[in-house]
Amino acid sequence: MKKENCMVFLDNASTTKPFKEVLVTMQQVNELQFFNPSALYGESVKMNTQLQQVKANLLKSLGATFFDNIIFTSGATEANNLALRGALKRNGKLVVSMGEHPSVYQTAKQLGLEGYEVVFVNLTENGTMDLNDLMEKLTGATMVSFMHVSNETGAIHDVKQIVQRIKAFNKNILVHVDGVQAFGKLPVNVASLGVDLYTVSSHKVHGPKGVGALYVKKGVNLKPILFGGEQESGLRAGTENVAGILGFEVAVQTLLPNIKTNYEKVNVLKQHLIAQVEEKVKQAVMLKLEPASPYICVVAVPNIKSETLLHLLEQKGFLVANGSACSSRNSDNRILANMGLPKNISTSSIRISFSEENTTNEVTQFLDSLWQVVSAHFNILRK
Amino acid sequence: MKKENCMVFLDNASTTKPFKEVLVTMQQVNELQFFNPSALYGESVKMNTQLQQVKANLLKSLGATFFDNIIFTSGATEANNLALRGALKRNGKLVVSMGEHPSVYQTAKQLGLEGYEVVFVNLTENGTMDLNDLMEKLTGATMVSFMHVSNETGAIHDVKQIVQRIKAFNKNILVHVDGVQAFGKLPVNVASLGVDLYTVSSHKVHGPKGVGALYVKKGVNLKPILFGGEQESGLRAGTENVAGILGFEVAVQTLLPNIKTNYEKVNVLKQHLIAQVEEKVKQAVMLKLEPASPYICVVAVPNIKSETLLHLLEQKGFLVANGSACSSRNSDNRILANMGLPKNISTSSIRISFSEENTTNEVTQFLDSLWQVVSAHFNILRK
Repeated sequence: MKKENCMVFLDNASTTKPFKEVLVTMQQVNELQFFNPSALYGESVKMNTQLQQVKANLLKSLGATFFDNIIFTSGATEANNLALRGALKRNGKLVVSMGEHPSVYQTAKQLGLEGYEVVFVNLTENGTMDLNDLMEKLTGATMVSFMHVSNETGAIHDVKQIVQRIKAFNKNILVHVDGVQAFGKLPVNVASLGVDLYTVSSHKVHGPKGVGALYVKKGVNLKPILFGGEQESGLRAGTENVAGILGFEVAVQTLLPNIKTNYEKVNVLKQHLIAQVEEKVKQAVMLKLEPASPYICVVAVPNIKSETLLHLLEQKGFLVANGSACSSRNSDNRILANMGLPKNISTSSIRISFSEENTTNEVTQFLDSLWQVVSAHFNILRK
Repeated sequence: MKKENCMVFLDNASTTKPFKEVLVTMQQVNELQFFNPSALYGESVKMNTQLQQVKANLLKSLGATFFDNIIFTSGATEANNLALRGALKRNGKLVVSMGEHPSVYQTAKQLGLEGYEVVFVNLTENGTMDLNDLMEKLTGATMVSFMHVSNETGAIHDVKQIVQRIKAFNKNILVHVDGVQAFGKLPVNVASLGVDLYTVSSHKVHGPKGVGALYVKKGVNLKPILFGGEQESGLRAGTENVAGILGFEVAVQTLLPNIKTNYEKVNVLKQHLIAQVEEKVKQAVMLKLEPASPYICVVAVPNIKSETLLHLLEQKGFLVANGSACSSRNSDNRILANMGLPKNISTSSIRISFSEENTTNEVTQFLDSLWQVVSAHFNILRK
């Protein structure tokens, strides 16, 4: 058994370890540039200018223009809440995929309770929206929200094609995409994708927790959800988390130049995992979706509950998830169930999620442990 | 003129420099305990337990019981938004002081636009609510919100007495108090004050930006304003800013044992400032309120606009404010105006706000600079 302090972290979709450079920057900001960016003296004006520069850089990283907007928030959850509640028109109709993260799914349900028309689009067995179902539900819609890469399964939506179909149906329908598991991992160009709103998170890309951002295309009419000071062009009140935002910037600038290399590296890990599970752990079922992010893999071992398998693997030194951390207390997996997977799979699945820092050696060790754990479990059952 | 890197910081009501111990803790958490507290493995459960312990400690620091609740937010702005929007009943009537920070004032105005009945209580020349006006407006009220210590003037509300009067009028009226400028500076005991909701901020007490908390008395029915995961007992979705929250905890535990000593120290600074301004800077007017926090002083020099005076002092090496940073772009001061101060005072006032780290020597140097700046200005005008 591995020691706690050398646990292998295979839950990078839930959060990531901040880069060293990120922490150095945050430390410097907190020590030397702790000023309130809304104050009027030079040191504060400088901080404010720097925040504007970070926005400009992030817009550029996202393939957006200087005329678009970035709103920094306390995280992707707030950004998703802001996108839905802030951009949904009075008497609007919201169409949301069934595969969404709770911050979109629960916000949509809440908006439904408040009297908005909210409908959900089913998933196919491939983990993406059923496009026939989507098109049927677009009548009267003013906004659609779906995710770029599923945090539960890694399934990738063809955002560009879907946005084109939505806009061809009615060009006034706003499209929000939750890009939390895509940004920093796949190339993202919001202009080319055609989206109106796009959510990104800091702590999923080796930045600090407590920071997220919402991309807002020029011309999109957004109302704030937090009221107070005039920060973020009046769209998000509250003193900016300056150190956090500048730390996020460093994470993004460190990660983005290496997207392609990292993708290829992580893809080798995933292919290794899939091949070896199929060869060696016969009781396990790998979820194989196309296209899917290499950063996220789902394995189910029917008859071992997700939580049990998670803890057995933890004892061997591996940290994995039973699905989204934000839904970790639910024993069934809403998303796998909606994809039509049988209950003995959806309640037995674990999520293995990589970062570019994981190694083939770690995956090999993980496979050994998975094999041992599963064999031991079935041997016990057989006795 | 002082160099930029040895500016004297006299704007501690806008933000404070994080304590070194705070930064050490944040660094450690970000390096070694970066896990998502919602995950199910031991390291995450440990983080979750630690967050619960921080809540218990903060409840204790606030004089609350273990049965009450603390909700961590992204800052005091979110906590104030949550208090008002989350606790105001359907068809409720909200009574708010005219002296509030924008995060309460603008939220109240927004709730008014959304159809809630919202009324504002005028201030007396003493900077606190006109209690006759308050009592008149309580008819039909379901919630009252006012601040413990004014961020603009330092005026202190007698919270206990005011809450008693409100509850004697109608015990079902919820009372929210924004304690951002009180907590860590004056003794705060929410049980003794009798409040239902109380807001505190991290970056005003030498903690990091991006963290605040709302105290919620047991039995208060609060609805979330951000939806998603089940964090914070389902009352505030989003992955916790763990490093920020633990940093805030260190700041509180460092500051609280020294409240009395710090208060006395800062009071000496304020009395020194008042006496010397009156003796030496004849053109200046000190705002003298009773009772007021020693941490906040207001000086006006009629005929020099706030922003001009701020920049002249900055050139001498002193950072002060023209009022709340969150309202810094407004040329008039809503709060001073509502107190009945003439326009040549309310548009000429600067705020000097201390921390326990400021020294008598700094105040003496500031007084010299103020005298020089004011003399030079009036000499120029006379020519």
